[in-house]
Amino acid sequence: MAVLKVHGSPISTATQRVLVTIIEKGLEYDLLFVNLAEGEHKREPFISLNPFGQVPAFEDGDLKLFESRAITQYIAHDYASSGTPLISFEKMPVMVNWMEVEAHHFEPVASVLGWELVYKPMFGMTTDAAAVEENEAKLATVLDVYEKRLGQSKYLGGDEFTLADLHHLPYLNCLMGTPTKKIFESRPCVSAWSQDILARPSWAKVLDLQKH
Amino acid sequence: MAVLKVHGSPISTATQRVLVTIIEKGLEYDLLFVNLAEGEHKREPFISLNPFGQVPAFEDGDLKLFESRAITQYIAHDYASSGTPLISFEKMPVMVNWMEVEAHHFEPVASVLGWELVYKPMFGMTTDAAAVEENEAKLATVLDVYEKRLGQSKYLGGDEFTLADLHHLPYLNCLMGTPTKKIFESRPCVSAWSQDILARPSWAKVLDLQKH
Repeated sequence: MAVLKVHGSPISTATQRVLVTIIEKGLEYDLLFVNLAEGEHKREPFISLNPFGQVPAFEDGDLKLFESRAITQYIAHDYASSGTPLISFEKMPVMVNWMEVEAHHFEPVASVLGWELVYKPMFGMTTDAAAVEENEAKLATVLDVYEKRLGQSKYLGGDEFTLADLHHLPYLNCLMGTPTKKIFESRPCVSAWSQDILARPSWAKVLDLQKH
Repeated sequence: MAVLKVHGSPISTATQRVLVTIIEKGLEYDLLFVNLAEGEHKREPFISLNPFGQVPAFEDGDLKLFESRAITQYIAHDYASSGTPLISFEKMPVMVNWMEVEAHHFEPVASVLGWELVYKPMFGMTTDAAAVEENEAKLATVLDVYEKRLGQSKYLGGDEFTLADLHHLPYLNCLMGTPTKKIFESRPCVSAWSQDILARPSWAKVLDLQKH
């Protein structure tokens, strides 16, 4: 079996999404560091791996992929018998529905809040308070839907932890270090769910990679 | 076999995405009209089907889904033996990668252009020229990647028409009636691909539904 190759950076949320999937699966991998500060993701040889000039890129033997959620789905399906299942074959359509919710309702809002509250201060830029207020209101509406769903099943896709939950980890973690965490904490089912999935040992290992 | 139920409107791009999938599959369906002008999508009974208050919602017997791309994937997988395959089992990871490109690179830009150039004028609102300029520049960058890809294979996922192409149809059609079409037409492979997929009889049937 080829060792999986992840080209990226442990500070990138999309790279984190791929790494936590591989670690949940207990698979061997090499993390090939792409220096974002030096713009390595915007030039060759990297853009031959990801033509949009964004991390990560992924290789498994001859197969090359670059969208983080396509990579996680490939790993979950093609290494189905290793580690945590991460997909529910029985409830696949429902799991996919909630994966789409993450992509089209959660991330567009969470990524703006992450940019304003975490990444802009990190780069010495000024947070736009109006953008924070607007997106916190949108997030509250999204999490009201999550609260109802998580009152019916322990995880978004059903009673097992799947990619539908896992895909949230990078931005959940990012926002838990900001005042926006109150929007999660004020909803009991959302709060229990986010604490549960953030406590997975695989996620601690991803965070550890940022220390090196 | 239960008749599939689609709750939505033929003017909604997400509803169109589901309808063209069902028509490609040759399946029977009922389109249950949701009156967007009267806000039926924002109240019961509709929001019990889609908690985000957006069309479409979908039922196949007891199964209820509401994210358009989750619905198309369900139909393509669970009705694999009917009509057009729409998925490439052999090249699944690559097809999924390009489905993710549509969702995260094409639609975020195309939907802003569609809003500014088609829907705002329809509602008597003023188009924001700066937003158009900014998003046309982004679209050009995205379509440069498509041009290279479509120089290598006839369709995005490989040599067959799949969901990776189909998911583009609603916004492709929308933008082809605006000045933005020049960005597609100036790229030979993108132009041939968009003409090819817009000419599918299934798409003509979706457009016909808007006349009733």
